[in-house]
Amino acid sequence: MASVTTLTSAKADTRPSAIWHLKATPETIHWGYFSPEIKPALRIKSGDLVQAEAITHHAGDAPELMFDEGVERIFREVDPASRAPGVHIMTGPIYIEDAEPGDMIEVRYLQMTPRNNYGSNLAANWGHLYEEFGRKERVTIYELDPSANTAHALYAYDFPGEYLVPGTITNCPVCDRHPALPGITIPARPHLGTAGVAPAVDAPVSTIPPGLHGGNIDNWRIGAGSTMFYKCQVKGGLFSIGDPHVSQGDGEISGTAIEASLDCLFQIILRKDFSFPSPLLETPENWIVHGFGEDLDQAMKNCSMDMLHLLHEQQGLSKEDAYSLMSVAADFGVTQVVDGTLGVHARIERRIFPGKGTVIDPT
Amino acid sequence: MASVTTLTSAKADTRPSAIWHLKATPETIHWGYFSPEIKPALRIKSGDLVQAEAITHHAGDAPELMFDEGVERIFREVDPASRAPGVHIMTGPIYIEDAEPGDMIEVRYLQMTPRNNYGSNLAANWGHLYEEFGRKERVTIYELDPSANTAHALYAYDFPGEYLVPGTITNCPVCDRHPALPGITIPARPHLGTAGVAPAVDAPVSTIPPGLHGGNIDNWRIGAGSTMFYKCQVKGGLFSIGDPHVSQGDGEISGTAIEASLDCLFQIILRKDFSFPSPLLETPENWIVHGFGEDLDQAMKNCSMDMLHLLHEQQGLSKEDAYSLMSVAADFGVTQVVDGTLGVHARIERRIFPGKGTVIDPT
Repeated sequence: MASVTTLTSAKADTRPSAIWHLKATPETIHWGYFSPEIKPALRIKSGDLVQAEAITHHAGDAPELMFDEGVERIFREVDPASRAPGVHIMTGPIYIEDAEPGDMIEVRYLQMTPRNNYGSNLAANWGHLYEEFGRKERVTIYELDPSANTAHALYAYDFPGEYLVPGTITNCPVCDRHPALPGITIPARPHLGTAGVAPAVDAPVSTIPPGLHGGNIDNWRIGAGSTMFYKCQVKGGLFSIGDPHVSQGDGEISGTAIEASLDCLFQIILRKDFSFPSPLLETPENWIVHGFGEDLDQAMKNCSMDMLHLLHEQQGLSKEDAYSLMSVAADFGVTQVVDGTLGVHARIERRIFPGKGTVIDPT
Repeated sequence: MASVTTLTSAKADTRPSAIWHLKATPETIHWGYFSPEIKPALRIKSGDLVQAEAITHHAGDAPELMFDEGVERIFREVDPASRAPGVHIMTGPIYIEDAEPGDMIEVRYLQMTPRNNYGSNLAANWGHLYEEFGRKERVTIYELDPSANTAHALYAYDFPGEYLVPGTITNCPVCDRHPALPGITIPARPHLGTAGVAPAVDAPVSTIPPGLHGGNIDNWRIGAGSTMFYKCQVKGGLFSIGDPHVSQGDGEISGTAIEASLDCLFQIILRKDFSFPSPLLETPENWIVHGFGEDLDQAMKNCSMDMLHLLHEQQGLSKEDAYSLMSVAADFGVTQVVDGTLGVHARIERRIFPGKGTVIDPT
């Protein structure tokens, strides 16, 4: 197999023939679960573009800033009892024609634009330092500056209660609002915390733990300019997006990112020519594999095995060569420690491989 | 406390008054251990420059390439039985005048130059995937191209035995030598795998596990242009360097990096004006804290607490603000999983803080 420095499709296969607009409404979202039983919100062909709305389930942390008519309708009309067993508002699913179980879909994320200029970070009861902070939950509201691609904190308040019901209106005008993080400017990293295909399961599964279907991976590199590869588990793939973030650090240790609604433009290409066992990311600089586990050590081991697979199966290295290369050139990071199933990712630079520019463009 | 974007000393305190040359010889190295009982190889004043040799204990993987007279003398004259309980050849210790327990030393790494153009990566019995590779050990020899700051593999061979004695001559001319990693070019990241002060202990301690004294941290960012802060545990600090690498990925999963001898130029500045509980790194872009633990989850928790400490104690943020900032802007990575005590580090960008340029230069 020839080694190449891109896994994405050649140009000839990928000229978009249609663009679809998918608004997020009570009829086109599913809140808290993935399931193969959900009626598709959209049907597309391979190569089509989709402009879709991703709505944060944390808009209730500052409704006067983060709600608009469309968001408010979702929060009002979707029964809180039905927002289960997970928490995220997922737009979709999108049915991709001819996609069969075992096929891959290549999702090229092209644009992610804030729906409004506000986001929320919750230091949550599932955060990494919840006990150390005396079991206190706290909301910090951030304002975005899209022209500078940065964010800064507007104010913070302690949430008097426990965040248990997805979409809780934590907004508390009677709480003391404190100034927060004076003078600090945070680089924006708009991305989707959760996106993926429907798992082949009988009952709805939670959107919280990430897995082989994708889901709540929470890697901030899943943003515009990057391409994800997900393995279809059911006919049509049934791809959904949600949990939009405008910034997050590797680890996501307070339990959330800067959660903020995003308008997303992406292209979906059906791939029957290669396979990968876990969600795979190609950024302009890196390939990134994702390992999951009940603890970081198990996630690390799974991630190692998937990087070995990438280098051996996709790049044609011997396993022994791949192991040496991983030790001297692959960077393992903590994706998140707050989603029940923990995540470790590994990056390897694409430029180190031979074959750069060898992808033949038949146009 | 005024928030500043550098922790390093102001210029007035740091003009070097002397430069010392510290060759690595059987008389100036200690192999496998840290101890407060070792006679100093050098005594310096705060602000002095040191040009010191760091020798890899893996030179025996390709003696015809990685040995010279100085290296050969160390391997020949230092009794293998005395290379214990750890593995690294440590140059030093360096006694810093007036350093007392609790003081910090600021070590500015200025240059790291390969001693020769060869290095070794061992897939070792302590590697992360040793069982998955059928308990096989394998050596890959790399050649460096200093002008391009890259490395490429020269050849690889299986090591017929088990690497147990530090400084083993694994070099095996009768073994099959295979070509390795054809066409792959690896960015060089010259750095010290191990460096630190003497722990306050009664018996020599192994160089293998990293700890609050520094030691075998194995963060590839501890290279030229970066500054480490170590807390002195004994009078004089007794700083040593070793375990030089020319490249490593976060994780170091095969058990080793590209291990290669380096000539290191650094400046040591005694700091009595601030304190930090664990080894702290300032790079041109980031502050990086290091957490350690018996597993990655424990290392992650310790690292989180140290980042909280940095943001609260050094930057003056409230703990609540710091926690939110960490979740949205600090990146946690796996430093290494192969040194018994595992490591997680966290990076935060210096540019996000206010006060850039406010450090007053009285000159």
